[in-house]
Amino acid sequence: MGNINSVVIATGTHGNEFTGIYLGKKFEQFPKLIQRPSFDTRVLLSNPKAFAAARRYIDKDLNRCFASEDIKNPQLASYEDILAKNIYYLLAEESKHQQQVIIDLHSSTANMQLTIILGSKHPFILQLAAHLNAINPDVRICYSQPTRDSNFLCSISELGFAIEVGPVAQGVLNAELFQKTEALIYQVLDYIESYNHGIDQPQTSTLTYYQYAGVIDYPRNEYGEIQGMIYPQLQFRDYEPLNPGEPIFLTFDGTAIAYQGTSTVYPIFINEAAYYEKGIAMCLTQKKTLEI
Amino acid sequence: MGNINSVVIATGTHGNEFTGIYLGKKFEQFPKLIQRPSFDTRVLLSNPKAFAAARRYIDKDLNRCFASEDIKNPQLASYEDILAKNIYYLLAEESKHQQQVIIDLHSSTANMQLTIILGSKHPFILQLAAHLNAINPDVRICYSQPTRDSNFLCSISELGFAIEVGPVAQGVLNAELFQKTEALIYQVLDYIESYNHGIDQPQTSTLTYYQYAGVIDYPRNEYGEIQGMIYPQLQFRDYEPLNPGEPIFLTFDGTAIAYQGTSTVYPIFINEAAYYEKGIAMCLTQKKTLEI
Repeated sequence: MGNINSVVIATGTHGNEFTGIYLGKKFEQFPKLIQRPSFDTRVLLSNPKAFAAARRYIDKDLNRCFASEDIKNPQLASYEDILAKNIYYLLAEESKHQQQVIIDLHSSTANMQLTIILGSKHPFILQLAAHLNAINPDVRICYSQPTRDSNFLCSISELGFAIEVGPVAQGVLNAELFQKTEALIYQVLDYIESYNHGIDQPQTSTLTYYQYAGVIDYPRNEYGEIQGMIYPQLQFRDYEPLNPGEPIFLTFDGTAIAYQGTSTVYPIFINEAAYYEKGIAMCLTQKKTLEI
Repeated sequence: MGNINSVVIATGTHGNEFTGIYLGKKFEQFPKLIQRPSFDTRVLLSNPKAFAAARRYIDKDLNRCFASEDIKNPQLASYEDILAKNIYYLLAEESKHQQQVIIDLHSSTANMQLTIILGSKHPFILQLAAHLNAINPDVRICYSQPTRDSNFLCSISELGFAIEVGPVAQGVLNAELFQKTEALIYQVLDYIESYNHGIDQPQTSTLTYYQYAGVIDYPRNEYGEIQGMIYPQLQFRDYEPLNPGEPIFLTFDGTAIAYQGTSTVYPIFINEAAYYEKGIAMCLTQKKTLEI
């Protein structure tokens, strides 16, 4: 693979995830912070209208609009469908002529710390993830094997990934998390700069990551209404082992509901606000290691 | 004052404050929980449309629509204006014939613990607040002296107050806070039951409360854009003393901004998500005591 020519930092793909949005505004005000000698970096505010409304989206979730079959489908014409097509053609066109990294910045109400969500197992991205994991104790790596082509914005480039930081409420800036995310972005940019100069990073031969293994919905009644909450002792315990038989929900009438699986899993996105409507109380992952 | 005849538990006055909304659903499913022999209790879901959209409001903040001049103004016809008039005429009509307590349930992204927000200094409400404060260590009492007639829903009754619980993200249930709020409501209902039976509560002669003394906005540029965040060490420090010269904001370029006041204050609603659009980074209060 040749040098990286360009980095796009996408912010506000969800309009109420302020950490990335205001980091992007800072970078636009002080562009030297993200400039590195060997490649261009720029900020893309993905959904300005949703940000102006301080909402995740206007019509539908933009970060589920990038499957290539949907991009090609002229019937899909909601605000976010149109926006996705614009962003796709802009970035996909650029990617034809250069190696472009896309970093899509998100935040979560779950205790995701600094999570790198890999859209692929491209060797460069795996090396970058292993490097970040080795130098930054808050970094966790997740991998979601797409069942069909990915519908995430960062999937436009094979060198794309998302960063998910939390816990932070929607529509809020948390200074500590803002600073940690900012430092992580500089670590990414510095890694790319070193790579372009052929400087070997200290080799990390083993990468620990968390692979998606399904989701669990809240207990609901026949009308689809939620009947319980995340069990108090599970709240904010993302990335910690969950064993069969341990409680995961507390129903409104005070009954504990246990995890029914047959093996230990590592739940993430526990109690993510935006996932109530998606029928997801948490995502389950398996802890894996990979030799790279 | 005669006996209390009726209690209205208003929930979902803001549609993305789930604690009160799902507590209300629990009470409707298990009505005996809020039934007491000497008075009626019922739940009112104030803004069902905003709840269905998981948003604070559809057109405007319902909990700023109840000033009597606005209720009488036929020009005000947004969704929430109409809703406010409906709720006002319903409850005000009922209050003519009975002593009605209105409890309006809210949640906050700030660390408000269990805050009772008094709309008046009615002796019954002060005694109730002092009782709750004495038996429940999480309870704080706030008082906002209205500059004109109050625009809060709970102001419909002179026996109205709001409960503000946090920290919890919008659109999320936190089981621990849900249970604490539930217990607090039972303490309120039990107090009213005792009052109706003429049973003396242990007298509390001194009430500590926090009186509103103004608000502070985020640092902004000439376009109104936010230029800084709550200072990391101030985040979640609601109700703790803030002294002149102590930092309250961190600008995006890393500069601390100090509190410019001349005396110690007690900030609350620090980094409340819904107040970004209102130009409020925190509310300042003065700590007071009152002999009752």
